[in-house]
Amino acid sequence: MTDGNPALHFDPDRRFPAALPASGAWRVGDPVGKRKFATVCCERPFVLEGGGVLPQIDIAYETWGTLNEDRSNAVLVCHALTGDAHAAGSMGPGHPSDGWWNNLIGPGKAIDTDRFFVVCSNVLGGCQGSTGPSSINPETGSPYGPTFPQVTIRDIVRAQYMLMEKLGLGAWCSVVGGSMGGMQVLEWGAMYPRHVRSLVPVATAASASPMQVGWSAVERLAISQDPKWRDGWYYDAADGDGPSQGLALAREISQITYRTSEVFDARFGREVYDPRTEFEQWGRFQVESYLDHHGQKLVRRFDANSFLVLSKAMDLHDLGRGRGGLAKVLGSFRMPVLTASITSDVLYPPYQQAEIYKLIEDGGGSCAYHIVESPQGHDGFLLESAALGPLIASVLRQATSF
Amino acid sequence: MTDGNPALHFDPDRRFPAALPASGAWRVGDPVGKRKFATVCCERPFVLEGGGVLPQIDIAYETWGTLNEDRSNAVLVCHALTGDAHAAGSMGPGHPSDGWWNNLIGPGKAIDTDRFFVVCSNVLGGCQGSTGPSSINPETGSPYGPTFPQVTIRDIVRAQYMLMEKLGLGAWCSVVGGSMGGMQVLEWGAMYPRHVRSLVPVATAASASPMQVGWSAVERLAISQDPKWRDGWYYDAADGDGPSQGLALAREISQITYRTSEVFDARFGREVYDPRTEFEQWGRFQVESYLDHHGQKLVRRFDANSFLVLSKAMDLHDLGRGRGGLAKVLGSFRMPVLTASITSDVLYPPYQQAEIYKLIEDGGGSCAYHIVESPQGHDGFLLESAALGPLIASVLRQATSF
Repeated sequence: MTDGNPALHFDPDRRFPAALPASGAWRVGDPVGKRKFATVCCERPFVLEGGGVLPQIDIAYETWGTLNEDRSNAVLVCHALTGDAHAAGSMGPGHPSDGWWNNLIGPGKAIDTDRFFVVCSNVLGGCQGSTGPSSINPETGSPYGPTFPQVTIRDIVRAQYMLMEKLGLGAWCSVVGGSMGGMQVLEWGAMYPRHVRSLVPVATAASASPMQVGWSAVERLAISQDPKWRDGWYYDAADGDGPSQGLALAREISQITYRTSEVFDARFGREVYDPRTEFEQWGRFQVESYLDHHGQKLVRRFDANSFLVLSKAMDLHDLGRGRGGLAKVLGSFRMPVLTASITSDVLYPPYQQAEIYKLIEDGGGSCAYHIVESPQGHDGFLLESAALGPLIASVLRQATSF
Repeated sequence: MTDGNPALHFDPDRRFPAALPASGAWRVGDPVGKRKFATVCCERPFVLEGGGVLPQIDIAYETWGTLNEDRSNAVLVCHALTGDAHAAGSMGPGHPSDGWWNNLIGPGKAIDTDRFFVVCSNVLGGCQGSTGPSSINPETGSPYGPTFPQVTIRDIVRAQYMLMEKLGLGAWCSVVGGSMGGMQVLEWGAMYPRHVRSLVPVATAASASPMQVGWSAVERLAISQDPKWRDGWYYDAADGDGPSQGLALAREISQITYRTSEVFDARFGREVYDPRTEFEQWGRFQVESYLDHHGQKLVRRFDANSFLVLSKAMDLHDLGRGRGGLAKVLGSFRMPVLTASITSDVLYPPYQQAEIYKLIEDGGGSCAYHIVESPQGHDGFLLESAALGPLIASVLRQATSF
């Protein structure tokens, strides 16, 4: 599997000079530090759906595989809330863990990097190379912090579109993603239908439900109630400390919503962490130790302000907003779509993917709908690669045979 | 409906002098302030399951209806985490809201106060009259605060047993409750089988699942991470302020787990609180306003340290602990049991009540199991009185006809 610096196997300047805008408004950045990806920068103001303006934006991305002659084999993979551009490949400097879809992306895998040119970019508002709250505001020379304007999924997708153009691509063979990634997939279908030949939105929703908004809201409260959040101005705190407790708590809450009783029962049961403290107020069960671990792990790799912005972007996700409603938007989809549910997903319950399927089919479009029987809950979209792989592979086969 | 001071219609000293312990260790307290209930006090040390000792305990209770001649018509109603002894009756001084089971308890209602003598006591560890962390420790003259020893459901039930004795009762016609109340019901069956003629544990579990422990744990974290919690020493804080933000957040989290997508969809949809701030980071959807409201409401009536102690007591709930396991305990139940599930309850899912049913029946006991079709989620045990009422009434009819 090609897992090196994408510049080693994909150099947009060398291969696609025609794609470079004459204005020179774009420049190709170097790989960020030791991270194995590149950035592109749009130096023109980027006006956001909500009215905010970013004077320039960087989009970090990683690629795998090789673009073919007619540029028809590009696949865009979209990441979820705390994901990043490292969708595949091993851990290493700049990558605290293996690619989050490592089982699906690679040579001979469902998203076969021997056949496809695969791109994954860090979302706008993120904290892994793309412009977000922790980035330097060129107008002030300091991090944006809480002045970073609220972005939406549509803004995130528009930035991806600009990346696509920069990479010299006219269309994606497929746009694929789960959870917040699936929201982006659906927005690709609504915003750029002529630039996507197929869509695979998994374990996602056409619009965020009030239950999902509720979860996001309490997670944001957990961060904002941490006094070390300091209204978002913590990057230069004298004690060097940010809202790590609040962010960890936010993650612990979300981690429960990602999993199921069945998984926790099998994994932890009622095992206690230390039997000597079983009856003490702060004695812990093993499941608490697990949640603490996930909280701490996120703190080490994620920025709290990015969590706030992206969590709110998910709440604002509504494919039908300003477009005449969900039925009209999804009913107009004419590219093949595959959506999939995880049976035990309580955060993005199957009825939400069934709605996507139904509204596309009702409008005369073509949508395949698969229900993956799994106890894994929402995290099934990351874990059930054995079930999801063949489904995604078949969409890609279809999308290349037109 | 009789809703006055229980002393007006039930005076244990006058009616049941034989039941008063000769030692005089018990005294009957006056109604607390303007609250319409009485307290009893055990002035002997109360040794807890976890090893802690309380030098004395008060148990606040409220009663409705009249005890019959042969003292066979007493029903104990057990409240849930943030409930209290005011299970029935209207709001008024000391009662910020109507009784939490007002639709089920009263003249002619399912738990008919024309026929039954109904008792509900505030749990040990609570904050509505019974001894809890906010009570004065007689050994220090100050509130217990974080030194209040961790109680378990078994401790709570043992205190209820002492109340029963104090009231001159030999047995309950039935012990009834949902959620944490249902945990108490089950412990009555295990600890005092000869003193209960029937049990009605609703929307509860034989032991807390790791998923439930996870939810409790993040709610406790929300409180303990509030700097105004002050490690539990906030009662005499110079600024007069306790961990209201943390307690509110804990409640918002739990409030979501009590409800369902279906209810939120119907009630809130994607309505925003103020369209002018829709795209702002801290703009709110209506569902957020609802959650904030519930958080603030709890802060006004509940003590954060009680929340911590009772939440942990629920986590420690395991009917099988030290008794050879759940199957052995439930398999030994010989009193009639009725358990009920709310179909949409994600916090106490139906499989938990089905387990209670199965283990009782497998052991040769008699358990009726009803599934209440409802979109209300866990709160269905409070809201679905039309469905639960006839079920409970039939158990009471059965329990009085032996």
